[in-house]
Amino acid sequence: MEENLKKKYEKEKDKLSTRLGYLQRVLKDYKVPVIIVFEGVHAAGKGRLSNELLIALDPRYTKFYATHSPTESELRRPFLWQYFKNTPSSTAVTIFYRSWYSLYIAMKNGTVKNERYNGNKVLLEEITRFEKTMVDNGTELIKFYIEIDKDLQKEHIMRMYDNPRTMWKAQEYDRDNDEEYKKEMEEILEEDEKSWIRVEYENRYKSVIEVLEIVVDKLEKRVKEEKKKAEADKPDNDGFFNGKFPNILKKYEGKEDIDKEEYKDRLIRLQKEMRDVQYTLYEKKIPLILVYEGWDAAGKGGNIKRVVQQLDPTGYEINTTAAPSDVEIKHHYLWRFWNTVPKTGHISIYDRSWYGRVMVERVEGFASNEDVKRAYDEINDFEKSLANFGAIVIKFFIHISKEEQLERFEARQEDEDKVWKITEEDWRNREKWDLYQEAINDMLDKTSTENAPWYVINGNSKKFARIKAMETILDTCYKAFLDK
Amino acid sequence: MEENLKKKYEKEKDKLSTRLGYLQRVLKDYKVPVIIVFEGVHAAGKGRLSNELLIALDPRYTKFYATHSPTESELRRPFLWQYFKNTPSSTAVTIFYRSWYSLYIAMKNGTVKNERYNGNKVLLEEITRFEKTMVDNGTELIKFYIEIDKDLQKEHIMRMYDNPRTMWKAQEYDRDNDEEYKKEMEEILEEDEKSWIRVEYENRYKSVIEVLEIVVDKLEKRVKEEKKKAEADKPDNDGFFNGKFPNILKKYEGKEDIDKEEYKDRLIRLQKEMRDVQYTLYEKKIPLILVYEGWDAAGKGGNIKRVVQQLDPTGYEINTTAAPSDVEIKHHYLWRFWNTVPKTGHISIYDRSWYGRVMVERVEGFASNEDVKRAYDEINDFEKSLANFGAIVIKFFIHISKEEQLERFEARQEDEDKVWKITEEDWRNREKWDLYQEAINDMLDKTSTENAPWYVINGNSKKFARIKAMETILDTCYKAFLDK
Repeated sequence: MEENLKKKYEKEKDKLSTRLGYLQRVLKDYKVPVIIVFEGVHAAGKGRLSNELLIALDPRYTKFYATHSPTESELRRPFLWQYFKNTPSSTAVTIFYRSWYSLYIAMKNGTVKNERYNGNKVLLEEITRFEKTMVDNGTELIKFYIEIDKDLQKEHIMRMYDNPRTMWKAQEYDRDNDEEYKKEMEEILEEDEKSWIRVEYENRYKSVIEVLEIVVDKLEKRVKEEKKKAEADKPDNDGFFNGKFPNILKKYEGKEDIDKEEYKDRLIRLQKEMRDVQYTLYEKKIPLILVYEGWDAAGKGGNIKRVVQQLDPTGYEINTTAAPSDVEIKHHYLWRFWNTVPKTGHISIYDRSWYGRVMVERVEGFASNEDVKRAYDEINDFEKSLANFGAIVIKFFIHISKEEQLERFEARQEDEDKVWKITEEDWRNREKWDLYQEAINDMLDKTSTENAPWYVINGNSKKFARIKAMETILDTCYKAFLDK
Repeated sequence: MEENLKKKYEKEKDKLSTRLGYLQRVLKDYKVPVIIVFEGVHAAGKGRLSNELLIALDPRYTKFYATHSPTESELRRPFLWQYFKNTPSSTAVTIFYRSWYSLYIAMKNGTVKNERYNGNKVLLEEITRFEKTMVDNGTELIKFYIEIDKDLQKEHIMRMYDNPRTMWKAQEYDRDNDEEYKKEMEEILEEDEKSWIRVEYENRYKSVIEVLEIVVDKLEKRVKEEKKKAEADKPDNDGFFNGKFPNILKKYEGKEDIDKEEYKDRLIRLQKEMRDVQYTLYEKKIPLILVYEGWDAAGKGGNIKRVVQQLDPTGYEINTTAAPSDVEIKHHYLWRFWNTVPKTGHISIYDRSWYGRVMVERVEGFASNEDVKRAYDEINDFEKSLANFGAIVIKFFIHISKEEQLERFEARQEDEDKVWKITEEDWRNREKWDLYQEAINDMLDKTSTENAPWYVINGNSKKFARIKAMETILDTCYKAFLDK
């Protein structure tokens, strides 16, 4: 290449880098996360192109994630786990070098062994829903498919063979099935051509500039959109309460109770069964997810304690959900829950959960009306992914009457050992009982699925609720064991 | 067991749990992290005891971490990696069920294969330093060694054999070498008997109460100490500057420069070598850690860009170090860096690093005098751990003169593409040039070690500094390749 052309290239690249840095900082202020995907056949120049893009971006706000042959701990988690965990925060760009598409194809054709997914088309659906969730929540998603002329590709590979340092990499290419990858990717692109950008790799100079220009162009457009949005009137955010809802809770308000001695006997028996079930889950490599929701002072914590009392502590985890940290708040609300998804054979228990999105966030207006309305589907998708992976998901809503809550609040206030449990916030929430009631009933109505059903439990008697919860867990597990 | 005794046990346990919860909340306010270790032979009741302790604690502030057979990604990281990452924040308790001791023994006797560490005594030193670092930084460390009578142990194991659900676990015991573990642990305890608490497991009731009582007792004492400390006068925190320091920087202030054409030629050649070196690192499974420190506007970012320009982006990561997040600030200052330690064969580059502790934190008084004085040793220990693992650690300080900095600041301010790079803070830092100079020289003096030497680079010419850095990296790697 002529010295002149090279100079021109460097100048052009510098100009685009500067612009890119500027756009990245503006989008950061607008809190727009950016995902850039690089797919493409072997030796197509993906590494060079993505590296030049990476260097052009501001390293403070840029992550690079390469899809690798899955580790043992990745294979023990749902398909999307490694990707959701690595989605960018609202101030960042993440480049995915090979992505969920590569992994999907490797699992489909068995290059990556995973009995749960091999040959299973369900993953393509998960991918679609995952990308939709990201985009709906504000992510700018840019997907590159890098193509290359056959002869040029062969030349690239031969060059790697010639260098003793890179020979191993070229040999790896031989082992992979590039033809199959290409065939699958072509099908994927055909299905949804417009969501992809094809780049034909010609040479480092031309192609680097092309990729940079495309990204700059996409980000320019996005900045314009954000500006317009910022100038427009803010949409209503009233939590769309109207008092009309299916009153599901009402069915669980009777006077159910249990005798003290009977309670003790059954508890001991059930706890022993729970321990055996834990070992069976381990043996059968089934993950179990227990979600506990309920009114303040409904007795969630005490209920959970009874469930885990006889368990092996190396196989379960209790996740309590408080206000998000400053890192969590900058991610999709499901991000922190993806981070704690149990591995195969393990149990994760959530004391409050992702359902905060459609309860407290709706009532307090932390999420917009649109966010909340979309969240029901997003949550169902999330739980579907867990079920696709073979997880058992059981969700409890512990229901107590407003009177019972008052009694418990007052009892806490009078007990010096328990007074710390009751805060101003509990009283404030109590005042919003009716709004919560509507939010809870909507939630139960919209997110009880076959994969992940809700069980409302009458919690006016703590003993009754504990026995009921444990029986439900055991029953569900026994049924699942029959199938698996 | 009599019904009466059992009732007494339940009552006693409730009382201790309530107290424990109280103490935990007080220590949380004092920002005291708590680590509780359970070691002990097979079937000694560690699971039961640690689970009862776990349940007695507040799940919002308690984590449980079980040492397992190391995963592939753990084996590709330094020994302490999984443990340091899981140390508690200043508001939390972490229970380690089997700990660094179990892993050390398994690596020593080869049950866990890791060529880097098998038979290597260096790990015991790392453990001692790690615990010291935790304690020095305010952690309450409680270590239990659970013992059990031989006959009772046999009974426990037989009971597991009898249950088809737990048989596999008992079979696992057979494969491990419990006798060897016991012998090693006895040696460890003998060395440092007073840092351990021996508990002889007799039965669930007596032993659970014993463990809870010991923890309550320890935490009571700690709360008293913290109260006393809070009432005492605050120690001086002036950053102990006196203008007396070895002026190491002075040697790197000449007029070194490099001709533009020569720079271009050498850069291209060195970048090509860098790419080959990256493949060799990968092949030899050697991790490389590059630390960049330097004055504001010294050219760290541009220098790093040149190093990575021709690299494979799937094998390196640039970590820029900004003010800590709210989660990071609650951990030991090295915590976030442990989280980004590269795996074998990979490169991690730090644009600013853990040295912030002895520069900005010292100058601004974010860390106390004692914290900073201790930090030199802690940092040397950290880098020693990296070296023990076989990592190459190279540290650059890019030095520019005060005049050069002013010129660059002014140039940035006049360039609309670069004006974002210059902030009020940069000007404030500049005013503290002399304090920084002392802090930097002390740092260079105290933390340049054989394992992890400092290279001061004259950065008044950016081109010179880039070539110099790359040559240093290449030289160091070539030397290391000869040995490995």
